[in-house]
Amino acid sequence: MQTGAYTITMRCQIDHLPGMLGRLTTMIGEMDGNILGIDLVENHGETLIRDFTIEVQNPQHAEQLVRRIDTLTGIQVLTYNDRVFLAHIGGKLGVHSRTPLRNRADLSIAYTPGVARVCTAIAQEPAKVYDYTIKRNSVAVITDGSAVLGLGNLGAEASLPVMEGKAVLFKEFANIDAYPIAIRSQDPETIIQVAEQIAPVFGGINLEDIAAPKCFEIEERLCNTLNIPVMHDDQHGTAVVTLAALWNALALVDKRIEDIRVVVNGVGAAGTAIIFSLLEAGVGEIIACDSQGIINRRGTRSLNAIKQRIAERTNADNCTGTLTDAMRGADVFVGVSVANILTPQMVQSMASDPIMFAMANPDPEATPEMLNQYARIVATGRSDYANQINNVLAFPGIFRGALDAQATRITPSMRLAAARAIASSIPRDEIAEDYIVPSVFNRDVVPAVAAAVAEAARAEGVVREPESVLV
Amino acid sequence: MQTGAYTITMRCQIDHLPGMLGRLTTMIGEMDGNILGIDLVENHGETLIRDFTIEVQNPQHAEQLVRRIDTLTGIQVLTYNDRVFLAHIGGKLGVHSRTPLRNRADLSIAYTPGVARVCTAIAQEPAKVYDYTIKRNSVAVITDGSAVLGLGNLGAEASLPVMEGKAVLFKEFANIDAYPIAIRSQDPETIIQVAEQIAPVFGGINLEDIAAPKCFEIEERLCNTLNIPVMHDDQHGTAVVTLAALWNALALVDKRIEDIRVVVNGVGAAGTAIIFSLLEAGVGEIIACDSQGIINRRGTRSLNAIKQRIAERTNADNCTGTLTDAMRGADVFVGVSVANILTPQMVQSMASDPIMFAMANPDPEATPEMLNQYARIVATGRSDYANQINNVLAFPGIFRGALDAQATRITPSMRLAAARAIASSIPRDEIAEDYIVPSVFNRDVVPAVAAAVAEAARAEGVVREPESVLV
Repeated sequence: MQTGAYTITMRCQIDHLPGMLGRLTTMIGEMDGNILGIDLVENHGETLIRDFTIEVQNPQHAEQLVRRIDTLTGIQVLTYNDRVFLAHIGGKLGVHSRTPLRNRADLSIAYTPGVARVCTAIAQEPAKVYDYTIKRNSVAVITDGSAVLGLGNLGAEASLPVMEGKAVLFKEFANIDAYPIAIRSQDPETIIQVAEQIAPVFGGINLEDIAAPKCFEIEERLCNTLNIPVMHDDQHGTAVVTLAALWNALALVDKRIEDIRVVVNGVGAAGTAIIFSLLEAGVGEIIACDSQGIINRRGTRSLNAIKQRIAERTNADNCTGTLTDAMRGADVFVGVSVANILTPQMVQSMASDPIMFAMANPDPEATPEMLNQYARIVATGRSDYANQINNVLAFPGIFRGALDAQATRITPSMRLAAARAIASSIPRDEIAEDYIVPSVFNRDVVPAVAAAVAEAARAEGVVREPESVLV
Repeated sequence: MQTGAYTITMRCQIDHLPGMLGRLTTMIGEMDGNILGIDLVENHGETLIRDFTIEVQNPQHAEQLVRRIDTLTGIQVLTYNDRVFLAHIGGKLGVHSRTPLRNRADLSIAYTPGVARVCTAIAQEPAKVYDYTIKRNSVAVITDGSAVLGLGNLGAEASLPVMEGKAVLFKEFANIDAYPIAIRSQDPETIIQVAEQIAPVFGGINLEDIAAPKCFEIEERLCNTLNIPVMHDDQHGTAVVTLAALWNALALVDKRIEDIRVVVNGVGAAGTAIIFSLLEAGVGEIIACDSQGIINRRGTRSLNAIKQRIAERTNADNCTGTLTDAMRGADVFVGVSVANILTPQMVQSMASDPIMFAMANPDPEATPEMLNQYARIVATGRSDYANQINNVLAFPGIFRGALDAQATRITPSMRLAAARAIASSIPRDEIAEDYIVPSVFNRDVVPAVAAAVAEAARAEGVVREPESVLV
């Protein structure tokens, strides 16, 4: 059962007669509902409106319970809603004013006529937009809703709860003012154009839940045309945390990164970024697999542009075969693919001290229970096992650092610096098989990542010159 | 002097020697600066960093003072900034989370995995986007920066302080979560496309500071293609308040709206909307003038599309001539043009009890002092005279009402309802020559406007069916 996910609130209209409430609460108890609270909402004389807050096992259980109660004579269920939905009513974000507006003097500062001088100052010296507007601290969370979580192509509107959630994370973890922008079209050219057109108000752009392979082109094009940091988090967020986890895992098994062979299964947004980030980090050998097996340069299968690029930079021996073939003798498995594709035999065929990152969502490439039997170190994307590879560790700090340094882009070396900061947030002597990744609630991680990213940006010279800073 | 607009904060590095502070404060006093406060910022041993908050007369005065002080031996002005700029540092808006994020259970509700069910629910029933996302209460403040206040075409970035100010007003007056969107391109087709593409996350669109005549087409097209309220405030905000003021003025001079003749001088965004709104309200006769004189149907001058439309619906007698000709015998003058074009003779040539709305910004079509000599009722766009025609009275309530009713558009009858509510917020027996418009700080106005607009929307049937409302 998912923590906190299945508490419902049920609103009932009940005939105002003796014994009615008792019949109802008895029924809830008999059906294994746990009553957390009862509130009287309205008294209409002949009927009462009451809210019942009830812990149930899952959505199916809630539905059964509600349907059964609705059959009781004299009781009508008006509506019911679980805690997740209740938490989403009216959305999860708000905009607030940072300037008072109590009287005419305040109005003349925040708006006309005072504001005119600020506009003129920016028109005369464009860098001042970073001093006097929200651009300094704002990030657009841009999506077309084409690859929402693991749910697929839900479109713009239905993706909004994720985008708002992302903005909430930006605020809570990095004090960044992020705003969701869900684009109606799913055409890459339109997405690029809209992002370019609305860039003036934003200090950065986080691309989110855009399907592969178009996500690669969209990110690359925007990085080149815009002079603000742009990052597709589904690619790089996961890749950065994966690399951090890998460094700590290697320290534990005492292998050098240039000596290892890594199998990456799945070459969507995350898999592709992981491959390039592992290459940047100096991994000795990478074998990439997709559903058709090992990606190679033999021309036996057609590859799209990005898989072609992967083929050129991985698989030095240009071998062919299946995932099973790839796994033989490998040191590390990185899965960003589908559930339950690993067998015990495959893990047993690996080199000593296997490191398994089984990150398929919601169900990993094999159960952690099985993997733990045969592998030395196991990480997943899930919060209910050790070693969660969670991009919340990466993106808030990366954007915080980029905004702080007034970086004009996010480079591979900035992402490497982020990964190093995440890895280092666990002291060397505390690294353990079940502790290669810090907790998302470790509040030291974001500041460390931000500082490392800002430093890397300055070192590489990809910062606004001169940084606009008010004394 | 503009209220509160010219207080500066000056940061100085001062040699840490006896008598230095005295020399400096003496100099400030001699130069007519009024010291409001002195703060020690840093003590570097040999030097001190101090902030001086000083009231000055205007920006020129501030500059003279700062330049003079900078010549003093042992004192260096590091930076100075006035109160308006200080209030703008980092922008005027923030985004906040409305949902807690203290622990993993919170995270699983606001983000994955809980959020997935909310996304799915919206994908299955699109109207739920109004229940579970910020769309319910969000408004985009969209501009291309082509007509920023009276400053002209400053472009996207430099327009941001105004857009943020607008969002602050939306929040403070109507609790609407508005976000600025400044579009880089000034091409109407691009502006329309971007607005259409980003509409999914917004419950309404406020177009702002977009130049005429393209603003007309942009608004019209968006109203037709989008099923959320769209309004160009520079047009309708001013028109609604003008009509409200006119109704109260007519009550005072005891004239019927169908009997009056109104001269509208200036047919930009505001002037055009005022003309059509006066026609909707039943004004007997309108003569529109631009810089070339009376707009007519004689074909003596070329008219763009919107002026053609104005020509067809005004000037029943199809007369020609100058503003001076138009003013003869008119009951009302509405100016949204340029400073100082009215002479005493022109006012004296009007009908009895002249009503003058001289709204050119920052300087009206004639000084209120002159107008008050010859006219019965005078209104301007300025806050330092009676009867300020301020669109802050209109747009927050109009959008509040449209969002509350889940209106799909903003119609002329909704705007008339808004004007009626604004006019009615002054009790009949309190209306006076210097009190035909309520104060912007009259907190009863927005709720009254919102209720009237929502009712008008429902009456006209331009609301989402069924309105998505959670019990």
